[in-house]
Amino acid sequence: MTPVQVACCQVRLAVGDVDGNRDLLRRAVEAAAAAGARIIVLPELANSGYVFTDAAEARSLAERIDGPTVSGWNELARRLDVLLVGGFCELDADGRVRNSAVVVDATGVRAVYRKAHLWDREKFVFTPGDAAPAVVDTAYGRIAVMICYDLEFAEWIRLASLRGAQLLCAPVNWPQLPRPEGERPSEIVRVQAAAATNRVFIAVADRAGDERGVGWVGGTVIVDPDGWPLRDLVLGREATVTATLDLDVARDKHISEHNDVHADRRPELYTALTRTHIEDFHD
Amino acid sequence: MTPVQVACCQVRLAVGDVDGNRDLLRRAVEAAAAAGARIIVLPELANSGYVFTDAAEARSLAERIDGPTVSGWNELARRLDVLLVGGFCELDADGRVRNSAVVVDATGVRAVYRKAHLWDREKFVFTPGDAAPAVVDTAYGRIAVMICYDLEFAEWIRLASLRGAQLLCAPVNWPQLPRPEGERPSEIVRVQAAAATNRVFIAVADRAGDERGVGWVGGTVIVDPDGWPLRDLVLGREATVTATLDLDVARDKHISEHNDVHADRRPELYTALTRTHIEDFHD
Repeated sequence: MTPVQVACCQVRLAVGDVDGNRDLLRRAVEAAAAAGARIIVLPELANSGYVFTDAAEARSLAERIDGPTVSGWNELARRLDVLLVGGFCELDADGRVRNSAVVVDATGVRAVYRKAHLWDREKFVFTPGDAAPAVVDTAYGRIAVMICYDLEFAEWIRLASLRGAQLLCAPVNWPQLPRPEGERPSEIVRVQAAAATNRVFIAVADRAGDERGVGWVGGTVIVDPDGWPLRDLVLGREATVTATLDLDVARDKHISEHNDVHADRRPELYTALTRTHIEDFHD
Repeated sequence: MTPVQVACCQVRLAVGDVDGNRDLLRRAVEAAAAAGARIIVLPELANSGYVFTDAAEARSLAERIDGPTVSGWNELARRLDVLLVGGFCELDADGRVRNSAVVVDATGVRAVYRKAHLWDREKFVFTPGDAAPAVVDTAYGRIAVMICYDLEFAEWIRLASLRGAQLLCAPVNWPQLPRPEGERPSEIVRVQAAAATNRVFIAVADRAGDERGVGWVGGTVIVDPDGWPLRDLVLGREATVTATLDLDVARDKHISEHNDVHADRRPELYTALTRTHIEDFHD
């Protein structure tokens, strides 16, 4: 495969303003495509915003998969011939509210993923997903999708990587937390480690600005399979981060003459990871 | 429990000079204990050095668990009332050569751990371990041990964390690799991520200097459960890195009002991690 330009749009969304957010995302996608991007990643809950006052507000903003947001992304993907990964507040077929992400290309919706690891008060708003990270074969290579707090579970990234993902696209809304002077945001450190230990590219789209008193890290970043950010960080500000990636690099899991990050695993020794009761670990 | 001072000794060992290395380690341990350390971590293969010309050389340097190196550490632990974690080239009871680490306190050897994930040409030298990371209840709290490349397997750290480890001690010999200008060694980035996603302390003892053309990162570091290094890095040079740790902090796995890095796992969705054939993941 030839290298592909990936863009992650760190936009300043407004909670509750679904029409305004849709317009703003459309313009960001059009600009990224015009600049050469073929894979474009948008933040988590990009239609609705994140800091809901309650579950009812989230439900009032949730959209069906055939609602205006994903329909609009379908139209954009077709018109611009791009692959879009974006997060949205979903009302699923059973009437449950989900923190979801879609993969959309010129042929339509390729995957819907529902966040499996919910952050803080999301637990009162969303029904968590019960499916593995979405992994999709695309014109550019094999792409996985997960959302924000999912990234902190190394198990989840490993599953995507073992299924052959070369690029992991992650819509996020990273809330700002204190960190020591001179330190990079810890969310980015974790993404670097995840990329390096799995030999995958990871493209994260975060938010700019703040929302109802929550500041966003603005940690949008594209990390290579060695775990290095490919561009200077754009912490907090509106920006589209782009990089041209040779995704074939992520098919090779070697890190030395005799090491391979997949083959070196000892899965027969990892069985306890699937124990469902934490108490079982304690003596 | 009261806070405990932990020291990691980044020493300049000489391959093959078992007597010299033993003396040097003894002096480092005595100095750390005199400065107040109660837990002292030494590098990987601290008796023998690392860059063997062949398996025969490693075998010629390997020692029994009751050999002079571990006996000396027992004597030091008793005399100084410290807990020592150190790596050594072991000849096991069945005559196999192992990349091992021991936990020794005033009562004697508390655990022997054999490295389960072997790096590069170690595969031609050592028999890998088949046991989980050692987790030991000590006077200071619950301590886990693993060695160098083991740290790159998030599964391994998770297992130790799920078994209640509050402090993970890791003897390492990190070989120097190129990194972009301004970036921290990737091994340290991975340790930061491992500590933060498991809410454990991690204390790493690396090597100073170089050996037969291999330069060491000298990445000795003590990281807190938020993933931050507690001291400035001492890259490459001889140094003992110390920090006083309240290990009880690592018993609390909460990272927000409604999040807990253990309880938020979805083990029922992680079963594929124990598949033994990588091919099973591919379509």
